[in-house]
Amino acid sequence: MADARFFQVAGPFTLGQLAGLCGAEMSAGADSTQMFADVAALETAGPQHISFLDNRKYLSAFAATKAGAVIVHPDVADRGPAGVALLLSKDPYRAYAMVAQAFYPQPAVTEWRAPNACIDPSAVIGANCWIGPGVVIGARAEIGDNCRIEANAVIGDGVVLGAGGKIGANASVYCAVIGKNVSIYPGARIGQDGFGFAMGAQGHLKVPQLGRVVIGNNVEIGANTTIDRGSGPDTVIGDGCWIDNLVQIGHNVQLGRGCVVVAQVGISGSTQFGDFVAAGGQAGFAGHLKIGMGAKVMAQSGVISDIPPGQTYGGYPAIPRMEWLRQSATLSKLARDKKQR
Amino acid sequence: MADARFFQVAGPFTLGQLAGLCGAEMSAGADSTQMFADVAALETAGPQHISFLDNRKYLSAFAATKAGAVIVHPDVADRGPAGVALLLSKDPYRAYAMVAQAFYPQPAVTEWRAPNACIDPSAVIGANCWIGPGVVIGARAEIGDNCRIEANAVIGDGVVLGAGGKIGANASVYCAVIGKNVSIYPGARIGQDGFGFAMGAQGHLKVPQLGRVVIGNNVEIGANTTIDRGSGPDTVIGDGCWIDNLVQIGHNVQLGRGCVVVAQVGISGSTQFGDFVAAGGQAGFAGHLKIGMGAKVMAQSGVISDIPPGQTYGGYPAIPRMEWLRQSATLSKLARDKKQR
Amino acid sequence: MADARFFQVAGPFTLGQLAGLCGAEMSAGADSTQMFADVAALETAGPQHISFLDNRKYLSAFAATKAGAVIVHPDVADRGPAGVALLLSKDPYRAYAMVAQAFYPQPAVTEWRAPNACIDPSAVIGANCWIGPGVVIGARAEIGDNCRIEANAVIGDGVVLGAGGKIGANASVYCAVIGKNVSIYPGARIGQDGFGFAMGAQGHLKVPQLGRVVIGNNVEIGANTTIDRGSGPDTVIGDGCWIDNLVQIGHNVQLGRGCVVVAQVGISGSTQFGDFVAAGGQAGFAGHLKIGMGAKVMAQSGVISDIPPGQTYGGYPAIPRMEWLRQSATLSKLARDKKQR
Repeated sequence: MADARFFQVAGPFTLGQLAGLCGAEMSAGADSTQMFADVAALETAGPQHISFLDNRKYLSAFAATKAGAVIVHPDVADRGPAGVALLLSKDPYRAYAMVAQAFYPQPAVTEWRAPNACIDPSAVIGANCWIGPGVVIGARAEIGDNCRIEANAVIGDGVVLGAGGKIGANASVYCAVIGKNVSIYPGARIGQDGFGFAMGAQGHLKVPQLGRVVIGNNVEIGANTTIDRGSGPDTVIGDGCWIDNLVQIGHNVQLGRGCVVVAQVGISGSTQFGDFVAAGGQAGFAGHLKIGMGAKVMAQSGVISDIPPGQTYGGYPAIPRMEWLRQSATLSKLARDKKQR
Repeated sequence: MADARFFQVAGPFTLGQLAGLCGAEMSAGADSTQMFADVAALETAGPQHISFLDNRKYLSAFAATKAGAVIVHPDVADRGPAGVALLLSKDPYRAYAMVAQAFYPQPAVTEWRAPNACIDPSAVIGANCWIGPGVVIGARAEIGDNCRIEANAVIGDGVVLGAGGKIGANASVYCAVIGKNVSIYPGARIGQDGFGFAMGAQGHLKVPQLGRVVIGNNVEIGANTTIDRGSGPDTVIGDGCWIDNLVQIGHNVQLGRGCVVVAQVGISGSTQFGDFVAAGGQAGFAGHLKIGMGAKVMAQSGVISDIPPGQTYGGYPAIPRMEWLRQSATLSKLARDKKQR
Repeated sequence: MADARFFQVAGPFTLGQLAGLCGAEMSAGADSTQMFADVAALETAGPQHISFLDNRKYLSAFAATKAGAVIVHPDVADRGPAGVALLLSKDPYRAYAMVAQAFYPQPAVTEWRAPNACIDPSAVIGANCWIGPGVVIGARAEIGDNCRIEANAVIGDGVVLGAGGKIGANASVYCAVIGKNVSIYPGARIGQDGFGFAMGAQGHLKVPQLGRVVIGNNVEIGANTTIDRGSGPDTVIGDGCWIDNLVQIGHNVQLGRGCVVVAQVGISGSTQFGDFVAAGGQAGFAGHLKIGMGAKVMAQSGVISDIPPGQTYGGYPAIPRMEWLRQSATLSKLARDKKQR
């Protein structure tokens, strides 16, 4: 189903192969030798396609699908059309991810250096890297094996990029030490000066920003996102973080492992996230806060105080989610009462 | 009035010519042969300039203007200085747009390819295109006639750009099929991976993003805005949409025709806008919503449920505007009462 | 302490030298000949380092520091460890800025033009400029002395950049007249078309954007920030403004001197800030407003009316801070009362 101008499909695979690679159980009566040519959405899939149901909002699309097979949670297995083969998984979205990766594996990096790339002679480039047109790599930079640096990206002096790294088109990276398998999307800005100055009526005075950006392994950093380097301490992004587009991360911020930061979130200087914190879109965090492990912050919330581990907060100033919902309901009722009087 | 370093003025035009090209009516006594050399703002215009009044906030500037002529709505025609010529229009801003386009037509595109542009030999470039320094165009891309690709822009493999397209400096476009007369501003990011992954304690697993970005005709996409490609379905931007700077549009989002999306709005994955939806600055939309045709969402609102056609919503969670204003008024009164006690 | 891959330290300096250059007073018993090799944070400093305390949140770090000297406000001088040398200053952050600038002075610009930079023959480049790989400079542009233009930046026709300017990697600047010592960070977008069009059911009609961006001296503009040029009037950024990352500044906006605009703020068209206005992160401003000198707007606020000089506003719609806090407290109490019933 994917446009062949942009994507190359692997396969085909049998239902048995797909069940095996994603750890799902075939429904009773499913034919493990049935062939599948591709993945597709429930609405557009045909008999040669495997699809998935994750968000229950799409149960009716499941009921009407013409897909040859569907990956679903066992709880809703009986909601599909008669005769459809099912792959039963407690985490159907993850199982779909594995199946889709089988059909659309990451293309292997092929060694190439664009003739017009400007690579400082003192930079060390690993084996099998693809370096696109217009790329600039500064003095003493260290690029690991199998990296892909897209067109017109700029990598500053001394930057370390681990093996398997991907730097998107027109991105820039300065003063950074980056782990393995990190993907930085087009236009992201890593390692520029933080917003540090001493205010004064005769003019604000710049404070030299002397820290780095230290990024762990398996991190994704979205398009046009900005991560300032530390002011003295480092700005730190833990292993496995997923950061969406247009996010602002201020100097000295520390994110633990596996944090999820949705688009347009802003995190002010020196705030620390524990592991697996999730921040909804457009949420804002004041500086110097501690957000506990596993905490969740709802979209557009404004966080101005610490959040304990595991809590879900919302509103501005952000408070525990249940309190915030109660406040919203209270206000709604008061306004309604007033209208009726 | 415009700085000649940056803009070239055409003309002069007579008042009659200007009235004709914008469909306005000359006020009684106006001299259709009066010559005009340029447009200018009410405050700075002289007798050789034509100006306009749209926002009534500037009625006093109208009353004091020294402009030779002013485009105004008939309802406020009597609020100008004695003797000023008027062009009467029910839509003075649109009439001004036509007049200003006459004085400042889009410069014609002249055919040129920068010697250092990297254009894949398999790309097809239309007639009369301007391709700036450092531009990169990938394999099998198709660029229509009369396109202008600014310096250091990057266009990926297989991208289709319709005739009359403009790609701004340092913008990047991947996996996209784009209609005619589309203008993508500097630094915009089109077609990168959407934010799709299956969360898990052992690490979040990437879901291949297999859709495209499909953009209609006559669309404008602002500076540093990000539009992710679909995850399987496409991300779709309808004809005539105007999208401002720093907007985030997630995977699978669909905008109908003529939508207006103001700066820093965020639209989460799979949300659908009908035709002519307007979203105020910094508004946020959760995923998988349907926003009806002609709906308006006020600035900074947080939309977490569907909106019927034609409605105006505000607040977070966004509710009908009148309810939201009533809630604000109720809270304000309660706080005042409390203070007085 | 700073990573030598990215930063070069000057010095060492004696305590007396440091006190002199930042105008601080040495504490009783401090040895003015004590040598310092570097600055460091309170937590990581050793005897050869000078540190500082500004935010009282870090008083306990001060109490436990092993730094050889600390710059502090006289009021908290007695909270440090016994025997530590102190530099007493009423503005310890500013004093630290001066000390840190002594250890890490801005590297001097060295004259260089990358062989692949595309500089129009009619452009005028001042003395001692560094022009990086892939840079594009348009016709009749004027670049002052000692400017540094980073890789792949694009400067349009006719742009004026004052002496000591810095343009970050992949930034773009059009239709702008820029003063001295202005620093534009990577990916910032200056001078593209503003969001100007006349809405209409048959299609929105572009209004030519005929103004410029005029930027004063000593201004900093953050990464991926967007500043549209004026529609007729200019967009104006006053001397000494500090603008953070991902900020949106619409056409015709005017900022006075010394304004501070934190990340992700959005300022709609034609709004005017007086001198020294401060806007907190993610705050939004409607168009055509006047924000008085010295006004402060709290983070995430939505400003839809003028603000008098010197006032602090918060909330949406933004109101005086005390009223806003009272409303929050009132709502919180009502919701609590309701729960207890």
